[in-house]
Amino acid sequence: MTLARLQKLTASLNASGLDAVVLNPGPTLTHLTGLQFHLMERPVVLFIAPNQDPVLVLPELELPKVDLFPYKVQAFAYGELPSEWENSFRKAAQALGLDGKRIGVEPRQMRLLEFSYVKAGAPEAEYPDASSTLAGLRLKKDAEEIAAMKRAVKIAQDALNAVIPQIKIGMTEREIASELVVQLFKHGSDPELPFAPIVSGGPNSANPHASPSERKLQTGDMLVIDWGASYNGYISDLTRTFAIGEVDDELKKIHRIVQEANAAGRAAGKPGIPCAEVDIATRSVIEKSGYGKYFNHRTGHGIGMEAHEAPYMRGDNMQLLETGMAYTVEPGIYLTNRNGVRIEDNVVITEDGAEVLSDLPRELRVIG
Amino acid sequence: MTLARLQKLTASLNASGLDAVVLNPGPTLTHLTGLQFHLMERPVVLFIAPNQDPVLVLPELELPKVDLFPYKVQAFAYGELPSEWENSFRKAAQALGLDGKRIGVEPRQMRLLEFSYVKAGAPEAEYPDASSTLAGLRLKKDAEEIAAMKRAVKIAQDALNAVIPQIKIGMTEREIASELVVQLFKHGSDPELPFAPIVSGGPNSANPHASPSERKLQTGDMLVIDWGASYNGYISDLTRTFAIGEVDDELKKIHRIVQEANAAGRAAGKPGIPCAEVDIATRSVIEKSGYGKYFNHRTGHGIGMEAHEAPYMRGDNMQLLETGMAYTVEPGIYLTNRNGVRIEDNVVITEDGAEVLSDLPRELRVIG
Repeated sequence: MTLARLQKLTASLNASGLDAVVLNPGPTLTHLTGLQFHLMERPVVLFIAPNQDPVLVLPELELPKVDLFPYKVQAFAYGELPSEWENSFRKAAQALGLDGKRIGVEPRQMRLLEFSYVKAGAPEAEYPDASSTLAGLRLKKDAEEIAAMKRAVKIAQDALNAVIPQIKIGMTEREIASELVVQLFKHGSDPELPFAPIVSGGPNSANPHASPSERKLQTGDMLVIDWGASYNGYISDLTRTFAIGEVDDELKKIHRIVQEANAAGRAAGKPGIPCAEVDIATRSVIEKSGYGKYFNHRTGHGIGMEAHEAPYMRGDNMQLLETGMAYTVEPGIYLTNRNGVRIEDNVVITEDGAEVLSDLPRELRVIG
Repeated sequence: MTLARLQKLTASLNASGLDAVVLNPGPTLTHLTGLQFHLMERPVVLFIAPNQDPVLVLPELELPKVDLFPYKVQAFAYGELPSEWENSFRKAAQALGLDGKRIGVEPRQMRLLEFSYVKAGAPEAEYPDASSTLAGLRLKKDAEEIAAMKRAVKIAQDALNAVIPQIKIGMTEREIASELVVQLFKHGSDPELPFAPIVSGGPNSANPHASPSERKLQTGDMLVIDWGASYNGYISDLTRTFAIGEVDDELKKIHRIVQEANAAGRAAGKPGIPCAEVDIATRSVIEKSGYGKYFNHRTGHGIGMEAHEAPYMRGDNMQLLETGMAYTVEPGIYLTNRNGVRIEDNVVITEDGAEVLSDLPRELRVIG
């Protein structure tokens, strides 16, 4: 399967005006090789060009991984002395005749560390942004990928269900987050979570990207939990909002509005419409309610091997949805310094609509 | 404390020939701000120049974090449309008068994503490598940092002690790794582990960077476990090797040699000697035994906020050890396609020697 992916990439290079691409450790490299390499102080890159075996540059102590490649690669390994590394990159570029050519890069993944060695190896080459070509490889999920994402959703939901009965007034956000992490692994998440869970109560819940703090839960708080699991490298990314004891009427109201917006967003997806339509369908529910200015982020993002990837559900994104694309629908209303609400689900485009991968109840539940 | 760190950095810029530095999310940014930002598709950077408030560029939905800064910063926030981002970077560079100046970068952390926006904001600037200046900020750990590392060691040791009685012949490497991860979080690790544990048995143990596989433990295997915990952002990184049932005499012998090398390496550290001496003290034990060519990596690396950071215990590194520097001592012998052994501890340089932070037994234990 990785060979088919590699062939799909090399076949697309010409149309993208590229002679090659160079990848460093990250989801695209894993997608194309089935292997995990780590971002570290020792640079690792794979050069891919049509009609030639891919060329790998890596530290000698990673050489056993070459045997695990699903297709033939030519490897240039370097020792522990950084002064010798540049030479391996030069030999790698020469092996593919890449100097002076157009070598696509992935700016979101490639660091200046790898890039400086790559450039030293092929100083006359151009390095255009190949993000859209490379993201295109992973945009449409196949049955196996969707099955892994469903399993990641189930692990996440089961983990939260195990935590909810333990949540009590007086617990800190960090305590809840720690217990959630334990439950995610107990239920079978891969060792690397897609992201550290957000657990935010009261005023902290009005910050969409809060980190769990030492603040204790109080009666009247909204509690936002944004969490996910990873299974075979594919992730889930969900959010639910709870009421801690009795909350005021406006909070109940904004929860109802966000729940409606989430439902509208989940229902909107189908092949052939632009991503913008999912954003508009979701956002218009909140705007009509008068809370539009309190929904200060896009409706969602693609998911798969990364917690954020293409396609993005944004009002200006005219990219058309296609069968197999997977993304989040996550409207929110954030009343600064008071409380916030977000409800997030994961959907995948089917032949005639969108399948929702997550089914944890969305109604406002009173806990604590 | 973060203010003192900031002042230390700005005071050092002049001597480094830099007018400013620009940082993206990562350990250096966290060290200087006490805050966590995430690497994502939305670029976040902090510009730091002497005698001016630092300047932050970030997405609008991260604006609540500005209030959490421990000192005054000037923030330029951008909305959800990428076409508008470049403008915020231009305003940020202008606010500090940085175009045409020397702005240091951290190549190991900065991605082409952030760098392309920074360059668009200050196209006439130079961007020299500021790694050594920035790494220097974090080289010598203070008492609070060492206390956090000790706690991270204790969490890791307690977690492994909870796993050892569960290890049985027939278990897969992945099963052991999963249980270890659960125990790391149960014992209080931060939600993000410093790295996914390595659990490798039999021939896999001869690959220093193996990933846990579906291979089942067999009698006669060596089992290498390389794992760590994180506490308040500071990490531990340990390795122990076990015998699964009765192993052959050569494996017992190489374990004894590695244990001696580890002891020599732990004893070697003291202020004023070059890092190379720690490598030589460790490596010479293995070389004298005749297994030198099977120890194919450096003796260790610095640890702190990252699993790999300066200083590196490498034969060519003449950097002098100073009080407060922390690093690993991790000799190994890897008999390719057979079995491997590694024993890794964490040490910190004191006023007259080196304190070993880890005390889990190192003798070969027979388990399973």
